[in-house]
Amino acid sequence: MGIAVAVVGASGYAGGELLRLLGAHPTFDIVAATAHRNAGAPVHSVHPHLVSLGLTFAPTEPAALAGADLVFLALPHGESAALAAQLPATTRIVDLGADFRLSDAALWARYYGGTHAGTWTYGLPELPGQRELIKQADRVANTGCYAVATTLALAPLIAAGVADPDDVVVVASSGTSGAGRNLKAHLLATEVMGDLSGYKVGAHQHVPEIKQATGARGLSFTPILAPMPRGILATVTARPTGDIDAAGVRAVLAAAYDGEPFVTVLPEGAWPHTAATYGSNAAHLQATVDIDSGRIIVQSAIDNLGKGAAAQAVQCANLMCGLPETAGLSALGVAP
Amino acid sequence: MGIAVAVVGASGYAGGELLRLLGAHPTFDIVAATAHRNAGAPVHSVHPHLVSLGLTFAPTEPAALAGADLVFLALPHGESAALAAQLPATTRIVDLGADFRLSDAALWARYYGGTHAGTWTYGLPELPGQRELIKQADRVANTGCYAVATTLALAPLIAAGVADPDDVVVVASSGTSGAGRNLKAHLLATEVMGDLSGYKVGAHQHVPEIKQATGARGLSFTPILAPMPRGILATVTARPTGDIDAAGVRAVLAAAYDGEPFVTVLPEGAWPHTAATYGSNAAHLQATVDIDSGRIIVQSAIDNLGKGAAAQAVQCANLMCGLPETAGLSALGVAP
Amino acid sequence: MGIAVAVVGASGYAGGELLRLLGAHPTFDIVAATAHRNAGAPVHSVHPHLVSLGLTFAPTEPAALAGADLVFLALPHGESAALAAQLPATTRIVDLGADFRLSDAALWARYYGGTHAGTWTYGLPELPGQRELIKQADRVANTGCYAVATTLALAPLIAAGVADPDDVVVVASSGTSGAGRNLKAHLLATEVMGDLSGYKVGAHQHVPEIKQATGARGLSFTPILAPMPRGILATVTARPTGDIDAAGVRAVLAAAYDGEPFVTVLPEGAWPHTAATYGSNAAHLQATVDIDSGRIIVQSAIDNLGKGAAAQAVQCANLMCGLPETAGLSALGVAP
Amino acid sequence: MGIAVAVVGASGYAGGELLRLLGAHPTFDIVAATAHRNAGAPVHSVHPHLVSLGLTFAPTEPAALAGADLVFLALPHGESAALAAQLPATTRIVDLGADFRLSDAALWARYYGGTHAGTWTYGLPELPGQRELIKQADRVANTGCYAVATTLALAPLIAAGVADPDDVVVVASSGTSGAGRNLKAHLLATEVMGDLSGYKVGAHQHVPEIKQATGARGLSFTPILAPMPRGILATVTARPTGDIDAAGVRAVLAAAYDGEPFVTVLPEGAWPHTAATYGSNAAHLQATVDIDSGRIIVQSAIDNLGKGAAAQAVQCANLMCGLPETAGLSALGVAP
Repeated sequence: MGIAVAVVGASGYAGGELLRLLGAHPTFDIVAATAHRNAGAPVHSVHPHLVSLGLTFAPTEPAALAGADLVFLALPHGESAALAAQLPATTRIVDLGADFRLSDAALWARYYGGTHAGTWTYGLPELPGQRELIKQADRVANTGCYAVATTLALAPLIAAGVADPDDVVVVASSGTSGAGRNLKAHLLATEVMGDLSGYKVGAHQHVPEIKQATGARGLSFTPILAPMPRGILATVTARPTGDIDAAGVRAVLAAAYDGEPFVTVLPEGAWPHTAATYGSNAAHLQATVDIDSGRIIVQSAIDNLGKGAAAQAVQCANLMCGLPETAGLSALGVAP
Repeated sequence: MGIAVAVVGASGYAGGELLRLLGAHPTFDIVAATAHRNAGAPVHSVHPHLVSLGLTFAPTEPAALAGADLVFLALPHGESAALAAQLPATTRIVDLGADFRLSDAALWARYYGGTHAGTWTYGLPELPGQRELIKQADRVANTGCYAVATTLALAPLIAAGVADPDDVVVVASSGTSGAGRNLKAHLLATEVMGDLSGYKVGAHQHVPEIKQATGARGLSFTPILAPMPRGILATVTARPTGDIDAAGVRAVLAAAYDGEPFVTVLPEGAWPHTAATYGSNAAHLQATVDIDSGRIIVQSAIDNLGKGAAAQAVQCANLMCGLPETAGLSALGVAP
Repeated sequence: MGIAVAVVGASGYAGGELLRLLGAHPTFDIVAATAHRNAGAPVHSVHPHLVSLGLTFAPTEPAALAGADLVFLALPHGESAALAAQLPATTRIVDLGADFRLSDAALWARYYGGTHAGTWTYGLPELPGQRELIKQADRVANTGCYAVATTLALAPLIAAGVADPDDVVVVASSGTSGAGRNLKAHLLATEVMGDLSGYKVGAHQHVPEIKQATGARGLSFTPILAPMPRGILATVTARPTGDIDAAGVRAVLAAAYDGEPFVTVLPEGAWPHTAATYGSNAAHLQATVDIDSGRIIVQSAIDNLGKGAAAQAVQCANLMCGLPETAGLSALGVAP
Repeated sequence: MGIAVAVVGASGYAGGELLRLLGAHPTFDIVAATAHRNAGAPVHSVHPHLVSLGLTFAPTEPAALAGADLVFLALPHGESAALAAQLPATTRIVDLGADFRLSDAALWARYYGGTHAGTWTYGLPELPGQRELIKQADRVANTGCYAVATTLALAPLIAAGVADPDDVVVVASSGTSGAGRNLKAHLLATEVMGDLSGYKVGAHQHVPEIKQATGARGLSFTPILAPMPRGILATVTARPTGDIDAAGVRAVLAAAYDGEPFVTVLPEGAWPHTAATYGSNAAHLQATVDIDSGRIIVQSAIDNLGKGAAAQAVQCANLMCGLPETAGLSALGVAP
């Protein structure tokens, strides 16, 4: 027998990816897909790839979610808390927004503004001990897309004491779906194709989340918009605390992710390709040490809508519901 | 218990897509993935997205295929026959090449050159009666990518007598994976991105296959290379044999594909998007009648590596092996 | 001494291309660049590539155009007539909109709606006799982008009597800038990259313009949105009126464009690439006869913002002002 | 009267861009365009956008260059020296390769291998004093593409003493033309579109050139291949030597480039877009200070074939020949 799930904010890109994954999931059954402006419209009018699901957007109201055992919230940042408060305590929730990720209310206020809604279990199962916490949780705050790409690359190095947490520099490029389905001129195909550009340089809201998840203390983070629909490539560099070579860095990462179904430290010589993770829950990592400066360099690739949002959310939901962690998910990207 | 399958020519794009689909298939187990130049190399060195499969390319030799109950051949046109001749009669084969598609040896010689290898059961289950033939076949010739996009749009209209088979004009654009993994300058990213160009204009080798599958007698076919990795959008126009409007054309198509799991005649007003079929076995169709000329216009979208190659091949293999036709396949494209 | 020019609707893509060309033109001096919502904003805030021009958008009002000897109107269809009526009769005007292209008021009403504004000299210098008319005109209606791509391919064939004007089928794909700077979800980079899709299938507004310019009587026209910022590739097919081979078709085109600085019938074997015309006023043509159906096939490539809009407008303005026709223009595309 | 110039290695992407610029240059006349394998072929067979130039590739031999007053060498690294040695001392040369950029033979050996050919005047006119040296030089070593993007962002900050030269981290993404016209699978459109990936991570050959040009002592440089034909976006971060804010960093850059025709420090709030420099000789810069780590962040955008190669080479040639520095060049990118 299936478990009834609902997707709130299903007209966005993360919402659409949730519907795609849930529509093929062996246990979860979609009982509602809600939207604001698009309520009443067929899902295919927004997501042409989902036409064979035959769904219609319901309005985003608690009544529409009454039959759901588990609800995925894929709303703009700051809108999850109000809806979550109206759901029964027995309804499991995975929030793909930022509302419940941070434990420090002051940092929330600084980077997001408004009132801090609270703190839920952080939905990154590959962090030490986190998988067990997610299994026991009824409320999970899914990771930010840049945060998961950076954290998977950085956290083990700081935990192992090989990277200096005070001097971390990250430059990460994202496909355009990371900006959501917003009607802004700089997101038009005409202006994006053939273009790379930075945005929110020096002040991105994922910085406190990354610091909280990794233990980094000094973090320079530069996000870049890249001309592709999906994918994040994060280049994480850190000053080593002592003598270490590429093999040493790789060994730390390999130990951290031994047995993980979705995180792969690539064979030596292979560097991550975002396209290799497209549509999947995979994260690919590779590392070296710069021959000139001696800095540690780790690159990680994920699909921002996959491991960076919807697939990660399904992974958490699987854990919360006692299902196999990999149910309905794949580590094989759709490429080329 | 699983069914052992092998992929010959696994280093190509269709071969890689077969491995991706088979790697997640509930019944088929990959026992061999063969290649020529890449024999002995890890599969991820060619297909980074398949790193978690942990496979290595075997040499393309009959011995490597000994354990396979079913073999997929994904070789360049003209190379399948020699290998097929070396396989036991009890080994089922799906050939993704063109070798066994045509029934007319003279047409083979004109469009492909060389000796005609023979004719196998044509692997397009949605043609009337063809599904049953595939179920009984041990040898299936998978469709050409342009051929399936065009045939799905055109065959029902000619069969129903509403389209004149003597005046069909098709212009179809394909993503670059349709050209294979060939190291040619005009396929380099630098030259393709931002570019559309025709090729083999007026003389494409899929013309006789389309005529054979649809009953068209006069067919102008123009293929175009489009700046995207996958996807075919075919615009099929035909002179109507009598009075017909858009609703009438749509009704013919809807009747032909009623109940089909992978072919969708889109709701009125929605036109096919290739991206909506990406990574799937879906085909999307829409039709109208030109207000100026009165010509019937049907557009169809598929993934050239999906319904146009690998996913279609798995669909045929499912039928040949008595499995559910949809096993391991999806009608949901990976988008955006 | 320079000639003062103004660009009305300079915040759009065609407007931006006009500013780029005029900013480097040897004779024309930009005295005003107007916009509606963006009036008062620096031009670089909309067109980052024009930052070194140091311009600011003026409001779209007759007063802002007072100092201009020639005005380019790059407004949405239907908005040119009202503004043109407020300009002095001595001010030369090139209208990039559709308002004054059609001579048949009924066709205007059918395809565009509203009141027909009138008919100006049609701005396609390569049509027989048209160059002289443009030289003498004070008001020129610049061509539609699809219309110029199709007309250059088709008009000589109908004029020479080799193509049947009653059975013309055109399928043309355009880069996204052809849709303008409209904030619509289907034009977002996330949804366009990797996607081809048809739109306005069977009823595009350039059909009457093409028929008027070419003499075609039965015209099926299918436009497709392609994942690239600029460029149109038109595939024009027509039934031959008699025996003709590829060389014959090529000879007709070569004769028509002999000596033209911007239209090139490509050497045999080379097919047009849209990228080869990027940023230029070039049009590239190639032709063949289909070996199966015997239809004539001509492909043409242009930059929809170049020969399809802004560069063509400058070409016309050069003629109107008695300047060298090629002043400030190039036939060399910016590629790759 | 014109100055006769030749392009050696004209079949590559930088060679093609040189031909495009020189074909429209007011003073330089192309007397030879040479190639190896393509000698004897029409230039349009390799560069379809240059069809109207009507050129044919000559063989790469000194005899073909006899009539040239100035020769541009656009050869693979390591091949310039041998040819340069065969040219008369009176023939001016601009080498777009790396052969003569480095002053330290040991660094040449470490990063490029083989014998160090020597050191020519470094072709970056915007460096203090460099413009005068170029004017007097007969031999100029054009900059590397990553080097110019990084150096323009970094050199003034180190020269002004505001950035610590021992802790510089650069992550730079390049369009695929930076990899040249090499027939490698990872450069195929099918594999690049939708993909970002690192390469030569931790050991790129432009590191010693950047250090030499900027005075940086500790430099971590990570190059990334981006899915676009042209453009480099470099993110340069450095630890500040003292208290400095974004305005302070911007003031240093603005002072360094005051009056420069091709380098623009963007207005506050605007970040560089590679597309805005496409086809031009422009470099766009913007800077800030990270609110978390306090690091200086400068982003620079150039066209790797423009300011990063061919346009920069023409700028140097203009200076060497006593022409206006901006002759035949534009600061206006071709966008969108």
